[in-house]
Amino acid sequence: VGNELLLGATIDTNGAWLGIQLADLGIPVRERRVVADHAGEIAHAVQECLKNAELVVVCGGLGPTPDDLTRQAVADAFGLALHTDPELMRGLEARFKRYGHTRLPEHNVSQAQVPQGATVLANPRGSAPGLLVPAPSGGWVVLLPGVPREMRGITLEEVLPRVATLFEDRLQPILQRWIRTTGIAESVLSERVSERLPGSIDPVELAFLPRLTGVDIRLTIAQGEGASSGAHLLEEVEALLAPVVDPFRYYADETGDVVEAVSRRLARAGQTVAVAESCTGGLLAQRLTGLPGSSQIFLGGLITYSDPSKIELLGVDAALIASHGAVSEAVALAMARGARSRLETDWALSITGVAGPGGGSEAKPVGTVWTAVVGPDTEHAQHRRFPGDREGVRVRSAQAALALLHSRLAE
Amino acid sequence: VGNELLLGATIDTNGAWLGIQLADLGIPVRERRVVADHAGEIAHAVQECLKNAELVVVCGGLGPTPDDLTRQAVADAFGLALHTDPELMRGLEARFKRYGHTRLPEHNVSQAQVPQGATVLANPRGSAPGLLVPAPSGGWVVLLPGVPREMRGITLEEVLPRVATLFEDRLQPILQRWIRTTGIAESVLSERVSERLPGSIDPVELAFLPRLTGVDIRLTIAQGEGASSGAHLLEEVEALLAPVVDPFRYYADETGDVVEAVSRRLARAGQTVAVAESCTGGLLAQRLTGLPGSSQIFLGGLITYSDPSKIELLGVDAALIASHGAVSEAVALAMARGARSRLETDWALSITGVAGPGGGSEAKPVGTVWTAVVGPDTEHAQHRRFPGDREGVRVRSAQAALALLHSRLAE
Repeated sequence: VGNELLLGATIDTNGAWLGIQLADLGIPVRERRVVADHAGEIAHAVQECLKNAELVVVCGGLGPTPDDLTRQAVADAFGLALHTDPELMRGLEARFKRYGHTRLPEHNVSQAQVPQGATVLANPRGSAPGLLVPAPSGGWVVLLPGVPREMRGITLEEVLPRVATLFEDRLQPILQRWIRTTGIAESVLSERVSERLPGSIDPVELAFLPRLTGVDIRLTIAQGEGASSGAHLLEEVEALLAPVVDPFRYYADETGDVVEAVSRRLARAGQTVAVAESCTGGLLAQRLTGLPGSSQIFLGGLITYSDPSKIELLGVDAALIASHGAVSEAVALAMARGARSRLETDWALSITGVAGPGGGSEAKPVGTVWTAVVGPDTEHAQHRRFPGDREGVRVRSAQAALALLHSRLAE
Repeated sequence: VGNELLLGATIDTNGAWLGIQLADLGIPVRERRVVADHAGEIAHAVQECLKNAELVVVCGGLGPTPDDLTRQAVADAFGLALHTDPELMRGLEARFKRYGHTRLPEHNVSQAQVPQGATVLANPRGSAPGLLVPAPSGGWVVLLPGVPREMRGITLEEVLPRVATLFEDRLQPILQRWIRTTGIAESVLSERVSERLPGSIDPVELAFLPRLTGVDIRLTIAQGEGASSGAHLLEEVEALLAPVVDPFRYYADETGDVVEAVSRRLARAGQTVAVAESCTGGLLAQRLTGLPGSSQIFLGGLITYSDPSKIELLGVDAALIASHGAVSEAVALAMARGARSRLETDWALSITGVAGPGGGSEAKPVGTVWTAVVGPDTEHAQHRRFPGDREGVRVRSAQAALALLHSRLAE
């Protein structure tokens, strides 16, 4: 729900995320609709969707402003009265007090309203709770805030467990395995995979999902009745692919984040890392500090965006920059050494490159990047030439540096 | 159209892009639907949408594989025969010859098929042409390939000019103005706006768009016949809102990025900035270096994630940390001073806080953040307590620091 989605000011990422979660649980999504902030349109869409599905998830329009109409629209459509939930009111008041307000803004009172018979789904990340509303004519409607962080939290913590119970007997889960790779192009990887698997692998399905940070291969099989044989088939295909994918593979949590893999290895070894960044401007450090508890493994970083700062902050030899250029193997290694000694860590990573759109030359075009890793008894630099725009080059550079550290830690 | 959209493997960016193009042309989008690769579902969705709109744009399902069903489904739904267009056949054959195939693959023949009465929309970027199909019951259906590059090309070159002619008399271009704010909660802002605009501002529409980095207010008006009076009305409403929004307002480009506003001011003044970050771990530097040409205004940054690194890299007095704690006004100011002197910039920003989930205390709970700005003849620190999880606190902290710099530069 939201004019901004129809106008194109916001790209609908919630829909895809929910699609993944529901499919994982075994609930196929039949249809998705985007409608305006208009009570009649919201009510009509919910009622139409209920003709075609037993569960309708509505995202957006639960905020405190007058153009947030979902709660009222659904209650009206179902002929359900709204009542103010005293516990939600107390929660809202406490929330606003906590953030320094003397009283609850009047507009927020609507967020404590609950349609008759609905279940409140706690939202510890924001002021609008989710709601699970039984439709009078059968079926269920879930109302969620449109803010992605809040929507995701409520879905994982409140919606999925309840829905799993509601549809217990009829879930059709899909078994899947992910092979996460980084450092190989999708077309090259898919060609090598085709050569390795010339015949059909039916009923296993294989999909390539390219991301800026690498290419994921997803192996899926409908679980059906034989869960154990399905898992076995997936393992067989994965084993067949090993010679092709293993050189580029990393192991990570469900989000496919190599930082998680690197952090776990460093923490287990009781080791620390520092970074020196030029063209990525802090992105590498930001990724390494994205997980809770990162201070255990990350001590600090130096973002040296100019030549003088590389010299002064990292101790890079000015003559090195003069003779090799700032984007070079020698400077990448010197930067990593500098970060390692300044921050007294076990490991250090560095990145120096041309993110563009300006700054490229014939010898070092936009996308040219040197990354280096320096650790106990090891030094290694890697040259890459990345496609993509400024953002793409930066994201790929940070990922390459993390993959480089991952490969050294894995040795 | 596409299973991958419902499963969440692909995020629907085409919908938003089309929404922008159509709104710019003066065609409001009433609704968007995502349906599976299933002929019945495609036909049903098109027919339902035609009840509610005079133009339906369908993206996807025009490829050569057996799960591409859109062309046939729409032709069947309208009772229109498909015939093979000889010119399209010649084009396809030439295209495949150009890429080294000896003959046209059999599957691709379907891409030369055209429903009776439809207009072919040339696609120089791919093998599937677009189609403009008149619905027998009135209204128009446009079929486009789902590949974004091809879809965009056909839309700009073929669809929009034709649609502008078809609906010539009734286009309703929308005028809009954005008011970007940061540092005020959506509910508080909307309450103040309501108090300021107690009556109707019809025909101007006002919407709040909350983001992690702040709340945008969008004012829109259908241009109708009086374009100049529409613009005038928007200006009037904006002027009315000034006393309420100005303390939190920043000026930015269309993307609403405060970095753009800060960078422009620094570049104009020939000044530079450096950063010292603790809990944001590089996010602030990353944002400042996100725009092309940022090396003109950004020299570098120090990410001091540990107490010793604050002391060694930034010259923060160890006694200061011992007496005030690392998350304090005194340390925030000392960090900014350190970055400014180490990198010899005009300005420096610092952030020190508790991003969570661990590390909070009763006196300094998760979300407690000090930001500081130090510049020519000015020093200022700001205490904030942000809601949200680790990611939310980090994003809001970086935004607060940028807003702090923006307010000082604006003075």
